Amino acid sequence: MSTFDAAPVALIVHAHPEPHSFSTAQMTTAARTLREAGYRVDVLDLYAEGWAPVLDRQEFAPVVGHFKPQAEQMRAVKDGSLDTTVGEHLDRLLAADLLVLSFPMWWFSLPAILKGWIDRVFVMGGVFGGDHGLFDDAALAGKRAMLLLTTGGSSESFRPGGALGPMNEFLFHIHRGMLEFVGYQVLDPVVTYGPAHMTDQERTAALDTVRESVALVAADLPTAVR
Amino acid sequence: MSTFDAAPVALIVHAHPEPHSFSTAQMTTAARTLREAGYRVDVLDLYAEGWAPVLDRQEFAPVVGHFKPQAEQMRAVKDGSLDTTVGEHLDRLLAADLLVLSFPMWWFSLPAILKGWIDRVFVMGGVFGGDHGLFDDAALAGKRAMLLLTTGGSSESFRPGGALGPMNEFLFHIHRGMLEFVGYQVLDPVVTYGPAHMTDQERTAALDTVRESVALVAADLPTAVR
Repeated sequence: MSTFDAAPVALIVHAHPEPHSFSTAQMTTAARTLREAGYRVDVLDLYAEGWAPVLDRQEFAPVVGHFKPQAEQMRAVKDGSLDTTVGEHLDRLLAADLLVLSFPMWWFSLPAILKGWIDRVFVMGGVFGGDHGLFDDAALAGKRAMLLLTTGGSSESFRPGGALGPMNEFLFHIHRGMLEFVGYQVLDPVVTYGPAHMTDQERTAALDTVRESVALVAADLPTAVR
Repeated sequence: MSTFDAAPVALIVHAHPEPHSFSTAQMTTAARTLREAGYRVDVLDLYAEGWAPVLDRQEFAPVVGHFKPQAEQMRAVKDGSLDTTVGEHLDRLLAADLLVLSFPMWWFSLPAILKGWIDRVFVMGGVFGGDHGLFDDAALAGKRAMLLLTTGGSSESFRPGGALGPMNEFLFHIHRGMLEFVGYQVLDPVVTYGPAHMTDQERTAALDTVRESVALVAADLPTAVR
């Protein structure tokens, strides 16, 4: 195996509609930091790709009778008839040692385009269920995942007792329900609170903090995975 | 005001791709129950309508410079230039005394098509922010909302200490972050666990339970709202 092949792989799935947003700057900072640490970085920019997030019957081979989404996913994995783009994204997901979901927090969750990436690419039979189990028995077990996000609200508003509610309680459905469910070890999220209200200088400092956080993640990669 | 106008209004926003699914049967059961209780029921079937869930710049009047989604929503509300479909859905939302979100739980959250309905229709300046505040000061204050959902997992798996995790912790991001945030009083969710594993007889019984739960909600409408 060449040195290149031996490099750990990070897949960053990014979901912001504006290339000049702070969220996008945060993503490119993370990508650069991982590359500098020796990762091969694969960036999937869902808005740029025009990703279609709605899971529906037309992506499957003709469905006889009622459409049962997960049953069709299982069948498509078995038959090798997954939608071409879904199959390609799934391959990129399975090839990654580290998954980074990069997004602005919209309604205390993922933007729809990213939620629909999970709906369509976290295929039953491909990442869990079928030959795989759930959690530690799922396909991504032994790999790591982290959220890289921005918020509208301040860090105070996301503390326990804050005006909005605790950040970790809002993220539970993603950490537990999406990432741990398919086997990932979930890392601490990297969050920039309220970049819209920052000065340019504060934004630069915030990106430095992102760089430092991501460098720690990069350095911490278990040797077993390399 | 005629008797018809005085009837309370329920908006059901439904998100399942299969018209013959249990989720859809559950929705039609709820709609019928509310009608029998005197509600005017407005059903918005997102898959049937071909709803486009991705919030992006093209739905707004030409954006000068960087696209900031919430700033554009505020501007569109002020200018009266909201996308026609978004404006129509927003009017239907504001007209409803009771909002019901009806969906299969996908990845411990809303299907992308429904998440994107929130992203696009819960407009800043229209339901919160601008002339409105947050939570009790938001536009839907005094109104009620509930989730009507199905799961893949069993009820045991969603109990505290269960294999998946507590249902109320998974729903927190929706209850607190989407519904309370815009002012709603959140009702107990109506959940059918694992209909895919039920016999026809069990499904019939489950729909009876849905009918009973929704009838209680209907009967409980505060007089002030009528």
